[in-house]
Amino acid sequence: MTVPDRLLDALTTALGSAGVLTAAASPDDVAGHVVDWRGAHRGSTPAVLRPGSTADVATAVRLCHEAGVALVPQGGNTGLCGGCVPDGSGSQLVLWLGRMRAVRDVDPVGGSATVEAGVTLRGLQDAAAGVGRLFPLSLGSEGTATVGGVLATNAGGTGVLRYGMMRDLTLGLEVVLPDGQVWDGLRALRKDNTGYDLKQLFVGAEGTLGVITAATVRLLPATPARATAWVAVHDVAAAVALLAVAQEHAAGDLTTFEVVSREAVGLVLDHAPGARDPFSAAHPWYVLVELAGSVTETLGTRLEEVLVAADERGLVADAVVAGGPAQRTALWLLREGVSEVQGHAGPSLKHDVTVPIAALPALVAATDRALEAVLPGVRRITYGHVGDGNLHHNLSKPVGAPDAVLRDRADALSAAIYDEVTRLGGSISAEHGLGSAKRDLADVYGDPVERELMRTVKRALDPRGLMNPGKVV
Amino acid sequence: MTVPDRLLDALTTALGSAGVLTAAASPDDVAGHVVDWRGAHRGSTPAVLRPGSTADVATAVRLCHEAGVALVPQGGNTGLCGGCVPDGSGSQLVLWLGRMRAVRDVDPVGGSATVEAGVTLRGLQDAAAGVGRLFPLSLGSEGTATVGGVLATNAGGTGVLRYGMMRDLTLGLEVVLPDGQVWDGLRALRKDNTGYDLKQLFVGAEGTLGVITAATVRLLPATPARATAWVAVHDVAAAVALLAVAQEHAAGDLTTFEVVSREAVGLVLDHAPGARDPFSAAHPWYVLVELAGSVTETLGTRLEEVLVAADERGLVADAVVAGGPAQRTALWLLREGVSEVQGHAGPSLKHDVTVPIAALPALVAATDRALEAVLPGVRRITYGHVGDGNLHHNLSKPVGAPDAVLRDRADALSAAIYDEVTRLGGSISAEHGLGSAKRDLADVYGDPVERELMRTVKRALDPRGLMNPGKVV
Repeated sequence: MTVPDRLLDALTTALGSAGVLTAAASPDDVAGHVVDWRGAHRGSTPAVLRPGSTADVATAVRLCHEAGVALVPQGGNTGLCGGCVPDGSGSQLVLWLGRMRAVRDVDPVGGSATVEAGVTLRGLQDAAAGVGRLFPLSLGSEGTATVGGVLATNAGGTGVLRYGMMRDLTLGLEVVLPDGQVWDGLRALRKDNTGYDLKQLFVGAEGTLGVITAATVRLLPATPARATAWVAVHDVAAAVALLAVAQEHAAGDLTTFEVVSREAVGLVLDHAPGARDPFSAAHPWYVLVELAGSVTETLGTRLEEVLVAADERGLVADAVVAGGPAQRTALWLLREGVSEVQGHAGPSLKHDVTVPIAALPALVAATDRALEAVLPGVRRITYGHVGDGNLHHNLSKPVGAPDAVLRDRADALSAAIYDEVTRLGGSISAEHGLGSAKRDLADVYGDPVERELMRTVKRALDPRGLMNPGKVV
Repeated sequence: MTVPDRLLDALTTALGSAGVLTAAASPDDVAGHVVDWRGAHRGSTPAVLRPGSTADVATAVRLCHEAGVALVPQGGNTGLCGGCVPDGSGSQLVLWLGRMRAVRDVDPVGGSATVEAGVTLRGLQDAAAGVGRLFPLSLGSEGTATVGGVLATNAGGTGVLRYGMMRDLTLGLEVVLPDGQVWDGLRALRKDNTGYDLKQLFVGAEGTLGVITAATVRLLPATPARATAWVAVHDVAAAVALLAVAQEHAAGDLTTFEVVSREAVGLVLDHAPGARDPFSAAHPWYVLVELAGSVTETLGTRLEEVLVAADERGLVADAVVAGGPAQRTALWLLREGVSEVQGHAGPSLKHDVTVPIAALPALVAATDRALEAVLPGVRRITYGHVGDGNLHHNLSKPVGAPDAVLRDRADALSAAIYDEVTRLGGSISAEHGLGSAKRDLADVYGDPVERELMRTVKRALDPRGLMNPGKVV
């Protein structure tokens, strides 16, 4: 089907001319909304709706509902699974929330903030910092990713170990339901047991059950002090054992526990400007450990205790502690630089997987074997959040091989990883969601009862199937 | 309707004679399952089903589903809102999970445990302690309350400030759905973004969407060391300000922050064996502050810092720090003794309310005025979890008044509290749930769009309305 002109006219009347960009009148502007930032997912749309308020969103959703036209909510468009890109049919409208940028309320005493969906994650962090508080969710794309998108995908990042996922930081939501009704669930309450926790349905639903227009989130005490170490370890088992030591000695302050493979660090050292290896020798794996709190000296002492205890257990091959902010930034570059430099190794095949933490060493060993069997020499540019059991198990072609070799074996390589993940009780999407890219995989690897239960929920809340069809379920 | 004999016969055949207790054959045993522990909610049932396994539960639910007979899941029966008591019709069967007591798995490295629904909360705590880990949820009835019940009501308690509610500690669930299918959602993953987070629907649903038969929960690093203070403050505003100071100086270690009114402490001092006032003078409000971690000295230093900083800001009327375990127990008695001694002030009218933390002083001031207007001299036996914005705002009759006066004015007194709570953006049930007791109140004070959305979910998952009917929605 095509989108009727009279619907676009009604939307333009309701939202104003700034509220509707048509592909016919503004092809270049619309083009940026039908492809994700990596260029991996591309679709088409006759128009991008740009509501400026919750009332606008409600009107747009209601008009589309009446006309039977599907909507694809979109924020910063930094997702990795195609969740906010329309399909190629030209029958879906993009609903871009980027104009809804109001910070409605910041409460430092109660520890909450209410912001609209189009506020960037960095904008929210800044609003918290402005009143001496912390909004702890942090990820590479935070300058572009929006609160709405971060909620829709239940984003994670580097602070999950201490602070949880976006779900855990959410106190309340305002949602436009598929028929255009507004659910005002904005609450700044730590506890509320008055029935089903509906906000949990919309967080992580990738816009398939309704459109999140605003949220009340938790703010935490600021942690201006940091203590950061870069630790070389012999293997992933040592990294997991080091995690246990760190939790024992610094539980309340432990904020970051990230692992990076030598292959990944090597790429950063070769290609990221300013990157340098703090150690004289190469090691198979590295861990970035960071404590955060209010007093630098206390944290330094605790971090020292962690490293001494870990060394006594033979877990540390080498270690360096950041002596100040510049050294800290240099250590973080070795971890955060990975995603930017991976292009230097050619196209990449990404896997965002998780297993129970104790199973991480088994996962790495088993997938090393399985991947090597599928494509000898395939490079594992592996890094991730060991404290959460989450690895970004990304692959690049063997050194010197043509790009096509990775594409040709992509399905078999991914299957080698997902099969092991499933065998170990893990998940094929730890923090990136399903979008369109992994929806069918979820049917393959997921539990049939669970997938059907999700469809039951989808049918109940969106019986006409107009909210981001083709995603998640 | 009545429960058909042929259904009871089929259930007895399937579950064995130990699996079905009929009121006809075992009236005394059945009687204990149709009234809650306080005697506030009473119903009737022709039989109590006692499944010993998930397969038993699935069979029982399927047979009842086919026969169109309603089920009321029940655990330790310690709930406060009548959620696990059948109605008076005699047409509902009780499904008691107390025989499902297996600890299926405990993983100290990964930090998780999988237990069946009938394991008591203390049993789970003990299983964690047995491997040197902590399961942090703690509440007065933990020796009797079961994991299934704690999940069904999303219980809170005294550790929520640091560790969250039961929802936040749950990694995975096994649920028997209303038609008897088993959803195996038992996972020990910190992250899993493969679609809707279905477990969130069942946690807090009070058995209205299915029967939780087992759960995988988070275990945390043990915190053998404690530092505990009892602080007298002038008013609730000082308590809230003290919370901010404590979060600033001891964020990662702060575990408990509880407030108790003088009226409540006075009752404990008068009636709890061994209770004594550590201060020479009476004060209007008290705060119990506790830090937990691994090193006693570090915690002691931090607690001292909190008290010095609070004193400098004029927030402390008096304070005492526990010098050892015995003194700690004595201070906790002043807080935990309240619910046990309240009977000495006559019948009580309980309110479990929450507002944004910053609004707590306004709530107490406004309800003081409103309650006094309804019933002069009514006693506020108030205590609660200030760190969560949650007060147990319980009322007793004026000194010397007949018991009936409280009952006669109950609706007006409760309305005085709930009206203010609602005006301040709060909730009429912070941690006790709705059950049958507060279901209609939720329709009065709740948002109509939200209540209808809950009913939509209920109809989708339980179209025949056989799972704990009359509760929550």
